[in-house]
Amino acid sequence: MQQGTKAIVLLSGGLDSTTALALAQSRGFDCHALSVRYGQRHGTELDAAIRVAREFKVVEHRIQEVDLSTFKGSALTDDTVQVPDHPTEGIPVTYVPARNTIFLSIALAWAEVLHARDIFIGVNAVDYSGYPDCRPEYIQAFQRMANLATRDAVEGHAMTIHAPLVSMTKSEIIQLGDELGVDYSLTVSCYSANGQGRACGVCDACRFRRQGFVEAGIEDPTPYA
Amino acid sequence: MQQGTKAIVLLSGGLDSTTALALAQSRGFDCHALSVRYGQRHGTELDAAIRVAREFKVVEHRIQEVDLSTFKGSALTDDTVQVPDHPTEGIPVTYVPARNTIFLSIALAWAEVLHARDIFIGVNAVDYSGYPDCRPEYIQAFQRMANLATRDAVEGHAMTIHAPLVSMTKSEIIQLGDELGVDYSLTVSCYSANGQGRACGVCDACRFRRQGFVEAGIEDPTPYA
Repeated sequence: MQQGTKAIVLLSGGLDSTTALALAQSRGFDCHALSVRYGQRHGTELDAAIRVAREFKVVEHRIQEVDLSTFKGSALTDDTVQVPDHPTEGIPVTYVPARNTIFLSIALAWAEVLHARDIFIGVNAVDYSGYPDCRPEYIQAFQRMANLATRDAVEGHAMTIHAPLVSMTKSEIIQLGDELGVDYSLTVSCYSANGQGRACGVCDACRFRRQGFVEAGIEDPTPYA
Repeated sequence: MQQGTKAIVLLSGGLDSTTALALAQSRGFDCHALSVRYGQRHGTELDAAIRVAREFKVVEHRIQEVDLSTFKGSALTDDTVQVPDHPTEGIPVTYVPARNTIFLSIALAWAEVLHARDIFIGVNAVDYSGYPDCRPEYIQAFQRMANLATRDAVEGHAMTIHAPLVSMTKSEIIQLGDELGVDYSLTVSCYSANGQGRACGVCDACRFRRQGFVEAGIEDPTPYA
């Protein structure tokens, strides 16, 4: 890879996206981190993204505003829908309509402006909580669409959507991040983290994360409430 | 079609999107109009969208904020790039990176919340100014991606992205709208329209529009500056 090759990395401040950032950097990309303030219930996640971006010394960290809370329909953006504290059947209420599509679209816009040809997203289809927009076939379809959407693509510069964690289990992701030196105490995965960034320990995201550390045989540095 | 079938219609306030709205209504859809404030230079376009939505008595009209002007890179969002007053080669500077991808993604989120299965977009590949995200192959790829992205799709309810104007010339669009009773004096197509909604008459958008009325043999009601 050429020196100075730019990549956009979607960074929520959670465990997966932070690992994706670590991986992109280890491959030699100059990383531009993109977070989205989409009306999520708490700002704890974005605080974590800011901490992580600083720790990794990314070239630039942008926080883009797109208020999806006006659409309602998800426990993550709608105060009237409760985050469940036990496993549920099918696609859970924490699913945010079209979230990854919107995030990747904004990343695509920024990539085009920077002439970056690589976008990293930390989606994961194994412990993916049943979200449709975390599956490899979705990522492939987005990439195909992206390569018809932009001026850069029309001019022959193909865009690659990297989802390096898509087929990994949570414990494999944690092992990888550990090898890359990720400090997971900086990250927040919890759907209902409190103002001090302390995790609830019982939501889907907390359960997958906690179990991942156990299976990886790595000490869980998450600050629980 | 069942009575009460909902559609999302992307509405910029221009000639094409207004014709797409008229067409969707004539086919019996209950139309929900979506406009996006993306950092475009002037608010004239959105004023037109509001007028058009009111005239068509849409079920609801939403204006979603996504500030793309922070990414720069287009004459439509960046004050330092001039809108050209003469035809140019290739994809013009008025191209906004990934614009239709972002608009369709937001429409997809809203469609999912409303359980709407139809999204209308007034893109046009004939007089399309050379924008890659106005071509039929792009629309098809977006639809394919959308049908892997959402809960509704996973549960077997396919989404259709309608681009009914994609293969029509500007004059054919104007003839169609005229038959459907569209009042084009409400719409604004100009890239540099002034505060009173008066069109410059010389930018790409004005030239295509003006020529379209001439070829359609229909009087041009556009208020020119």
